[in-house]
Amino acid sequence: MQTINIQTNQRIDIVDITAQIEAIVNEANTSSGVITVYVPHTTCGIMINEGADPDVVRDIKYQLENLVPYQKGYKHLEGNADSHIKTCLVGSSDTIIINNGKLVLGTWQSIFLCDFDGPRVRKVHVKVTG
Amino acid sequence: MQTINIQTNQRIDIVDITAQIEAIVNEANTSSGVITVYVPHTTCGIMINEGADPDVVRDIKYQLENLVPYQKGYKHLEGNADSHIKTCLVGSSDTIIINNGKLVLGTWQSIFLCDFDGPRVRKVHVKVTG
Amino acid sequence: MQTINIQTNQRIDIVDITAQIEAIVNEANTSSGVITVYVPHTTCGIMINEGADPDVVRDIKYQLENLVPYQKGYKHLEGNADSHIKTCLVGSSDTIIINNGKLVLGTWQSIFLCDFDGPRVRKVHVKVTG
Repeated sequence: MQTINIQTNQRIDIVDITAQIEAIVNEANTSSGVITVYVPHTTCGIMINEGADPDVVRDIKYQLENLVPYQKGYKHLEGNADSHIKTCLVGSSDTIIINNGKLVLGTWQSIFLCDFDGPRVRKVHVKVTG
Repeated sequence: MQTINIQTNQRIDIVDITAQIEAIVNEANTSSGVITVYVPHTTCGIMINEGADPDVVRDIKYQLENLVPYQKGYKHLEGNADSHIKTCLVGSSDTIIINNGKLVLGTWQSIFLCDFDGPRVRKVHVKVTG
Repeated sequence: MQTINIQTNQRIDIVDITAQIEAIVNEANTSSGVITVYVPHTTCGIMINEGADPDVVRDIKYQLENLVPYQKGYKHLEGNADSHIKTCLVGSSDTIIINNGKLVLGTWQSIFLCDFDGPRVRKVHVKVTG
């Protein structure tokens, strides 16, 4: 297992981590398998989506905020109930295929760490299995 | 593959199954790999989120109910269309990393079975791959 | 890794691909492991849900459309911002267990490709790991 640290910069910050994941796959010398990308925080998710146009990430943030508003009479007293609920919708991990030693992403796909309760330094765990 | 049985107690019941998953990992004698936690029911999901403060789970239930109300003119006639839609949002499985023979959960993370059409006895399938 | 091609027929089309995934598992001669089903498009998801009553899929489409309307003042200019957001909610992959050489689905579970920006020919990548 390897762990990378990511600095986020806003309360809700969606950060492209594709380059870091690709570097780990390239060093792993695994020709065929899968990689699990896992975030060990309860207010962060891992998402695969378009990385080319930053408006896509902006729209995702905007609509997640519409679906799960920051303040809404939640019971959890730490002021980040919405962050936990957004994490539930996005999910804590993703699995991506490795083929011929390369991460198999679609043309427009990037891998994102979604911090819903930043800014902080967040960990992402990565494990290659073959 | 191993299967555990979980009794749920309400129509929407989110049950912490971390101890059962950890026990399977501890018995598996796999030093390094991943574990797939999979629910074979179409009205249940697997979620990773905070287990320390029960208000987090309460807020998740509350907001899922706001997003996907129980009754809403759905077409499916069994009265559990909302349960299927909630399952679509939460997802049917999660993958967690095993490192040094231990399940790698974050400090605040627990693994939950989400029953959206209980109460029932539900199965959860678990598979370690390394 | 194997890749299957799926023709979708509507802008939002949820297509049962269970038979294709089962065929790959049956040919794989892997008695025990998992299969990763992964869609390399940023406007498609992979979902596990009920395949018996087509009204379940209709209700899922209907409620996803309620949660993430087609047009809503999004910033992304290609007219498919909603498709990217729906993909974020449904997820780009699923992992299913293989036991005794068979795909372990629940009685009512099917595997679906969800195209949120069709109609098109879409790829689904599949990888067995043991």
